[in-house]
Parts: sequence; C-alpha cells; structure tokens
Amino acid sequence: MSDKTLAELNACSKSDFVAVFANIFEHSPWIAEEAAAARPFAGVGALLAAMKSAVERAPAERRLALINAHPDLADKTQRAAGLTAESNAEQNSVGLDRLSDAEYQAFERVNNAYRAKFGFPYIVCVRRQTKDSILRDFERRLPNDAATEMKASIEEICRIAALRLDQLVAADDRLPVTGRLSTHVLDNHNGKPAAGIAVELVELAALGESRVITRTVTNSDGRTDAPLIGGRPVPIGRYELRFSVGRYFAARGVPMSDPPFLDEIPLRFSVSDPEGHLHVPLLVTPWSYATYRGS
Amino acid sequence: MSDKTLAELNACSKSDFVAVFANIFEHSPWIAEEAAAARPFAGVGALLAAMKSAVERAPAERRLALINAHPDLADKTQRAAGLTAESNAEQNSVGLDRLSDAEYQAFERVNNAYRAKFGFPYIVCVRRQTKDSILRDFERRLPNDAATEMKASIEEICRIAALRLDQLVAADDRLPVTGRLSTHVLDNHNGKPAAGIAVELVELAALGESRVITRTVTNSDGRTDAPLIGGRPVPIGRYELRFSVGRYFAARGVPMSDPPFLDEIPLRFSVSDPEGHLHVPLLVTPWSYATYRGS
Amino acid sequence: MSDKTLAELNACSKSDFVAVFANIFEHSPWIAEEAAAARPFAGVGALLAAMKSAVERAPAERRLALINAHPDLADKTQRAAGLTAESNAEQNSVGLDRLSDAEYQAFERVNNAYRAKFGFPYIVCVRRQTKDSILRDFERRLPNDAATEMKASIEEICRIAALRLDQLVAADDRLPVTGRLSTHVLDNHNGKPAAGIAVELVELAALGESRVITRTVTNSDGRTDAPLIGGRPVPIGRYELRFSVGRYFAARGVPMSDPPFLDEIPLRFSVSDPEGHLHVPLLVTPWSYATYRGS
Amino acid sequence: MSDKTLAELNACSKSDFVAVFANIFEHSPWIAEEAAAARPFAGVGALLAAMKSAVERAPAERRLALINAHPDLADKTQRAAGLTAESNAEQNSVGLDRLSDAEYQAFERVNNAYRAKFGFPYIVCVRRQTKDSILRDFERRLPNDAATEMKASIEEICRIAALRLDQLVAADDRLPVTGRLSTHVLDNHNGKPAAGIAVELVELAALGESRVITRTVTNSDGRTDAPLIGGRPVPIGRYELRFSVGRYFAARGVPMSDPPFLDEIPLRFSVSDPEGHLHVPLLVTPWSYATYRGS
Repeated sequence: MSDKTLAELNACSKSDFVAVFANIFEHSPWIAEEAAAARPFAGVGALLAAMKSAVERAPAERRLALINAHPDLADKTQRAAGLTAESNAEQNSVGLDRLSDAEYQAFERVNNAYRAKFGFPYIVCVRRQTKDSILRDFERRLPNDAATEMKASIEEICRIAALRLDQLVAADDRLPVTGRLSTHVLDNHNGKPAAGIAVELVELAALGESRVITRTVTNSDGRTDAPLIGGRPVPIGRYELRFSVGRYFAARGVPMSDPPFLDEIPLRFSVSDPEGHLHVPLLVTPWSYATYRGS
Repeated sequence: MSDKTLAELNACSKSDFVAVFANIFEHSPWIAEEAAAARPFAGVGALLAAMKSAVERAPAERRLALINAHPDLADKTQRAAGLTAESNAEQNSVGLDRLSDAEYQAFERVNNAYRAKFGFPYIVCVRRQTKDSILRDFERRLPNDAATEMKASIEEICRIAALRLDQLVAADDRLPVTGRLSTHVLDNHNGKPAAGIAVELVELAALGESRVITRTVTNSDGRTDAPLIGGRPVPIGRYELRFSVGRYFAARGVPMSDPPFLDEIPLRFSVSDPEGHLHVPLLVTPWSYATYRGS
Repeated sequence: MSDKTLAELNACSKSDFVAVFANIFEHSPWIAEEAAAARPFAGVGALLAAMKSAVERAPAERRLALINAHPDLADKTQRAAGLTAESNAEQNSVGLDRLSDAEYQAFERVNNAYRAKFGFPYIVCVRRQTKDSILRDFERRLPNDAATEMKASIEEICRIAALRLDQLVAADDRLPVTGRLSTHVLDNHNGKPAAGIAVELVELAALGESRVITRTVTNSDGRTDAPLIGGRPVPIGRYELRFSVGRYFAARGVPMSDPPFLDEIPLRFSVSDPEGHLHVPLLVTPWSYATYRGS
Repeated sequence: MSDKTLAELNACSKSDFVAVFANIFEHSPWIAEEAAAARPFAGVGALLAAMKSAVERAPAERRLALINAHPDLADKTQRAAGLTAESNAEQNSVGLDRLSDAEYQAFERVNNAYRAKFGFPYIVCVRRQTKDSILRDFERRLPNDAATEMKASIEEICRIAALRLDQLVAADDRLPVTGRLSTHVLDNHNGKPAAGIAVELVELAALGESRVITRTVTNSDGRTDAPLIGGRPVPIGRYELRFSVGRYFAARGVPMSDPPFLDEIPLRFSVSDPEGHLHVPLLVTPWSYATYRGS
C-alpha cells in the first residue's frame, strides 16, 4: 500500500489528483479527471465507484478506446517496446515473463484468435489468475459475441483498477480485493498440532514448469506464521501443497516402515474464488491422512 | 506358472530334473543335482528348502563362485553379450533396460564401487525392487563388511531362486513370494462405493521418468476387478495412485466450484514389504478426502 | 433353515404339502392348497411367487379375511389366548414380549387407532423392524386410506411369508430376505487392523430400554468372525456400536492422557434397508476417529 | 470477576485487606494477614504466590488445621449446618447438591474411608472436577501415605484459593486457572462450515444422571458464538457432544435414507487438563464423520 492517504487526495489540486490516478485505468487519465469532480470521497470504495461510473457513462467508442489501450498478454514485441509499469509488474507476477515455449505459443494463439474475432485485445485481470487459468478463461470467452466480450473486458479492467487502487491509496476502508490461503497440520498420532513440518506451495502448470510459490515451516500451533497467500487475490488455478511428514515423524522417533509409508504428502486442489478464504488442513499419522476445504 | 507339475518332477530321471532346474540358481546346475537326491518332495516349499540346504552345505569357494556367476545390474556390455533368459526378463521387469542417463550412471557407479570393495558383483532380487529402491539398498549395503555381504548376496540369490521356482513348478503349495496392492474408493457424498473412477498407479523415480504401472477403472463395488499389483512381489519403492474424482462427481451432476476444488487426487506412498498385502483406499467427497494403510 | 428339501415337497402328497405350508400365511391354508397345484417348483422363489399369485387372485373378501387372521402386535390378551408359534416367535424376536410400560401403551394406542380407522389389524413384518421403527411405520401409515392400507397389509403379509418360507425349505436358491451388518476397526496409530477390540451392538429405543444385540471382539484382521447381524433381515431402526478403544491402546502401551481422550467410542446410526449390506468401520487413533457407511 | 481492583487492595488498610481475602483459604484469615505484609503486589500472580508462601512457611500443625477447616464433600449434615458461601457455591457447581442415591452413598463412603485412614477430610478442588472424576481421584489417592496426602491436600487448597482469587480481584494479569472447550462443524458434503446445527454438551456420570452443560447452535462459521466451556476450568471428566446433523441435512434437501443413516451424532471424550484448550471438531456428510483432538 501507498503512503498517499485518501484525506490528502481529497484535498489536493485536481491536476495532482489526476497525476496520481492517471494509470489506474491504463493510459486513460480521463477517468481520474471525471472522478475528481466527485470529491471528497468517504472511502476508497466510493472512489472506485466514481471511477466505474465514469466508465459506464462514457460513450461506446470511448470504452472501446479504453479496451484498446491495453497490451496483449505476454507479447514480446509490446513488452520490448515498453508497457506501463503497472502492466509490466502484473504480467510478471503471474509469470508471463518466464513462459515455456509451449506456453508462449499458446498465449500468442490466444491473442491472435481473440483479436481476429473481436478486433480488440484479450483482457483479463492477471493478478487473479495463473497461466493455466488465463488460457482456460480464454477458451471459455472466445465463443462469446462482441457485446458480451465488451462487457467482460470492462469488468476485467475494473478489477485491474481496483487492485491498482488498493495498492496506491491508504484509507479507512479496504476494497474487497484480497483473499487468503492457509493450512494447518494436526498430528493425530500424538494428538497435537504438528510443529516444524516443512511445507511447500506449488502452482501447477499444464504446459510449463510448476512454480514454488511459498516454502515455509509450521509453527507450534501447526499453522504457518503468515498465510500461504494473503494480502492479495489468491490466483485461480491448480496448486499442490507438499508436507514433509516422513522427516517429522522420524525426528520424533515414531516407529515406521522403511521406507516410510508416508513421506512427502501432496494435496492437490484448485482455487476458484480469488477473494475468498480457503483453508486446506492436513490431519496426519504415519499411516493415514485427511484433508478438506475448511474456512 | 508352468505346466510342469511337482509330481512329474518327483518321478522323472535325474538328468531331466537337473535340466528343468539348471537356471533356478544362475549358471549353477550343481544345486539342482544335489537337490535331486532328496526326492520326492512333498511340496515346492520342501524343494526350495533342499536347494537352499545344498547352497549352505557347499564350501565357501563354491558359494563365492555362485555369487560370481551373476551379472552386474544394468550393465550394457554384459547385456549385449547375453544374460540367462531369466536374468534378462528380471532386469527388464524393473526397467533396467530403459534407464535415463542419470540412472545409468548411478547404476554403473553402484556396480563399480561394490565390485571394487568386495570383488564380487552387487546382487539383489530385482523383482522385489524398483530402480530407486535398488540404489537405496546399495547405499545401505556398501558400508558392510565382506562376510555380511556374502550372506546378504546368498539371501538375495535364494529370493531370486524362489521366484523362478514359483514360475516353473505347479504344486499343491505356493511359495510365499507374492504380495498384493489394492485400492477401494468410497463416495462419502452419496454414501456408496464410487464406480467408474479412472485410477492410475505410477511408480515414482528420483532420477528417471516415473512409470505408469496400471491404468484401470473402479467397478460397482468401488474396487478394481484385479489388484493393482498381484501374483508377484510388490516392488519396494515410492508410488502415486491417481484418482479422477472431478470427472466422476461432474458426471453425477454434483454442484462443484469451477475449477473443481478436487480434480485428480494423488495418493503418494511407499511399499516396504513386497510379500505383504497393502490396501490404500480413498474416502472422498468433492470437498474432502482421506486415505490410510489398510489390509 | 429346515431339513425339508424342495425336491421332497415337490414330490409329496398334496395334503402333506399343505400341512407343511399351512402357516406360511397365518391361519390360511388355502394359499398352500392353491400353490400345490402349480408343482413342481424350480426353486423357492417360484414357490413364493405361486403363493403370492394365489393371494392376488383371491376375491377381496378373502384377502380381507387373510388380514383379519393376523393378531394385534403386543396384545396381551391375544398372546395369553395363544398365537401361532410363528407369530409368537416373530413378536418375541423384536422384543414385543418385554415392553416397557410406555411402549406397551404406545402399542395399544397403535392397535386401537388403526383398528378403529380401518376395521382390521395393523400388520407389519416385525422381523424387519425394531420396536421404534414399528411405531414410526404406524405413524406414517395411519393417515392413508383403506385401499392403500389393504395393499400395504398384503405386502407385509407376503414379507412375513417369505421369511417363514426361507426358514422352512432348503432349496438351491435363497429368497433375498437377509441382510448383513458388519464392522472393521483400523488402528491408524500403528497402521494395522485393530485386533482384540471389544465391540457391542446396541439397539436404541426411544420409549423403553436399549437392548444389546451382540457382544464380540475383533479378530486379527480387525473384523468380527461373524457379521454383527447376518442370515436374517437387519431390522430398521437406530443402533449404537460401541468400541472399547481406551483399553486397546492402553494394553499396547500407547501414551495417552489420563483419563484417555477416547475410551469407549459410540457410533450411532440407523438402518433403513433390512436386506442390504451395511458396513460401519472405525478408523481410530488415541486422538481421532472416523466412520462412514461402507459396503 | 470482582469490581475490587488490585490497586485498591494494595492501598487499603490491613484490616480491609484481610476482610476481603478472609475466605480465599477456608476459615483461615491468618494467610491473608501474612500476605498483607508483603504489599504492594505487582499482580494477582504475585499475591497468590505470597499466600502460598505463607502456607508453606506455617508450622505443620497450622497446615493441618487449614486442612481440617475444610468441609467434607457432599455431606448433608455439614451442608445443613452451613458452609462458607464459597464452599457451597463450589460444591453446587459440580452438582454435589443433586446427587443420586448411589452417588450420595459413594461420596459418604469416600469421606468416611479417607477420614478413617488419615484423620482429616478428603479435599479436592471441585471446580476442576466432575462427580465421576472426584470419585476416581479419591480411589487413586486413598492408597497413599499421610505425608503424600498432606501435600496433595495443600496443593488442592491452593488451587481452590487461586480460583477464588481469580473471581475476587481485577488486575492486569490473570491467573492461569481457566481452560476452554470448543467445537467446529464442517459440512464436507457442501464444502462449507455447517451453520445452524444444534449442539448439546453433556457431562456423563457413571452412577447418577448425565447433565446437560450447554445447549447451543453453530453460527455461520460452523462454530459456537461462545466456547462450550470457557472462563473457568474445564472439569476433568467424561463428556458427550451431540450434534443434530439429520435435521441439518434434511433442511438443505440433501437426499438421505429413511431413517437417515446419521441423525444425532455423539462424540464421547474425556477432559484431562482443566486449564488446557481442547477443540473437538466434527467433519460430517450424511454418510460419514470424523473428529479429532484439535487445539
């Protein structure tokens, strides 16, 4: 989050206000300009609403220009020519700067097919996605008609704006743009939280390499000190949580088979709600385990 | 198993008996010769005992010659020159004919280090092992002294012999050389066995490619028609069972998130007792699952 | 089951046949008489079908007489005057000879209310029921009209007949009149079947005393040597399975709290399908347990 | 807790101080008198330590008099003659004023046997116990020698004092005299916390009637708004948590058998650590459930 407070931005000059918010909507300062007129804002939620309202009130050609102001995803030529700092960071966060060849080709196909059909770029709020879920989202949207996709694009643009806004302004309220992924390991052999278990969160990828998102260790309460993912959307996608339980039980002198029946336990699951709270616990003995979608 | 019955072999000429059993112990027909004198055998267990007894009674140099009659594992030169049909089939069964470069180098290192220290080849009953477990077995045995390894080699040779014998002779009794790996899927969402779930058993490999051992589908009782592994030892090693539960619940119209929280569920476990019965069931809903070492 | 074989009964005189089957349908030998004409029967299923067909073909007044030939449930006066041996044994099997005062009054109310509305006795196949489920069945049936209840009564009478027939005649086929209730205890602390666990099956009763149906101990496979209920219908009703796990783990020297977190574990469940196979396993450690409806 | 603050009690007259704390130790104001001299206290922990120290410094006969100042448990004659308000409330809290005949006789036997052997009353901090655990505690202590029991009695007396002190004084610190029992219901059929489940906590009693301790309903997070037991010790003893899951699933239109396989689910467990945090969750579908000792 930023050191800019909403109070300051309510009070500053219009030009300063527009300068701060120029890139909340990609290359489209006119939205900040219109919103400036509605100051002061009681909260960041009201500010976002004013910006959305400006977009909705705009004539169709202006909304189309807004859409066209966005870059293609993972387009090397555009990236070389330079994106906004915001777009660049967002695309990197999801790994679009480190694609495998197969993934690069898939994204190129997506961009081209989408642009060929609709005449504007395929837009999705990448901070809410993984590489796989973007390709899946595209497959679902390509059959739509243009009106539906205009609407979908504006919706994604507003999601992008909300996340940029959340990072830029400190206010009393928070936009509901963040989710949480957490875990908890219960040792049912000893009837206690399992402390000191190495945990790895991996984002799975169908076409490229899986990426380790977090490596951590459970604390004395069997939880991790920080959520596995928190303070940001939990990207839609497939994940694997890996728990080193063999080492844990061996260190406690628990009798096991050789090799141990359970060593590294993978829990594979998908995230569908980036702003939700998803809890994926592990109940474990050297001979059994269970998991469930908790909250 | 063979069409040769123990009754016939109890009654045939000594030379026929020796011809049949010449390769039960690699290139060592003298063991069959000695055993022939103890005929008739009440069962195949008694026959194996007689052969083992011949090995134990033999002078040390003869036992050493028996050990030296065995080929190295995964040795390309020896394989090119020709192994006994039995050795060849055994080594292929565990995938020693399809090693990755890293695995090939690991095996070469094993053979050389072992032979350099003990002066005889590293022997292990490969039908009870996976590639990974052989390398692990070697790491454990290399620090031993020569007497311990002479003994360990003879023990492995007798295990090889038992498995060859089990395939060759039909008798009323069976040697305890086979194990079983099975599964069972319970649908706790509907309170019924889960029928029609695609199941895949994969042998994991640290240095090379994982191998699919079995692909099957659960029947109306939630089990597989045949055990995942049966009628042979269950090789020591690490495995992953993969269950396509997303497709199963989707086909039944069960409400799920998109993408489904659980889709393909991997259960990762190790086998430590090749002659045991290992049951690895899955209790599952669209939102939870559990497994345990059953029997 | 009986020592009378279907072959003998196919061959004997008509009067012998009728004598044997006179009480399959309460005080109604005419059904056996009609069925006798259809001999020989390929199996006991065909014999039952012939008897049912005789009932269906009979004029309404005869079917009503068949219904009226049945005693009230748990009626002390009628019991004092004497029931058929079959009715007596059936009523005793469900405990109708040992009712609490509250239960006795409930049954009296049932009999009277039903007879007052329909003019014939309330009939249910008690071997498929518990005291509680009979009272529940009655509550469900009392609002029906007379035609529905005539039909329901005949159906119950045929169920009674099927169970009597199953006990009386030995044939190659068996009537599908029996179910099974079984359990299995897995010790997830040690990764083994739990042997030597005391198990108690109790039938719960809302108005009277709960009854212990079986007391047994798990064998080396964690199962009971015989099903908890088998070779007969599993009566519809509420049950509790009780497992003495505290003593089991204490005997194995497993560290536990004092008193043990888990000592006697009750699993409470209902049976709804008397002819089904119901498996109620227990997965247990000193600190956790799970159960599910298995098959 | 009280409206008396430690600050006030540090500052008041010695006689006021003694008056307030006269009954922290039963009929033994001398302990408060000695502690008064050590004022001011940084916290309630320091105050308790000063009181304990006074007890420990006292000559043996004075400690014996302290022990003898305590009433018998559940003694009708003494209760009729009048206990301190504190003793009365404590004994009532555990139900000693509502004993069954069998329990009353058991307590009389305990009191008499203990007094006959040791010459002083059997003392236990009843707020940390249930009726059953008191009788069990007695059985364990009776075989001890007098010195051990003198020590055990003083320890129990100090526990009683700590709880009285905790209720009487408000300070910045809290004595570690309270525990917590909580639950959580996860609906694994729908992948959500189970809201609106009726929950009952029952204290089991071997000789008398079980007592309902709490009746509540789960909230939207599947938890109860307040802990089942909190802000006081969780009495050592056997409990049953009962969850009305049949009604819950029926209200959601989930297909079930009739009667439902699971209706009221009892979880039976023991508490051994009155000052600990014990979490007993339920993971449930209409066909399965699990629990474990959580934290």
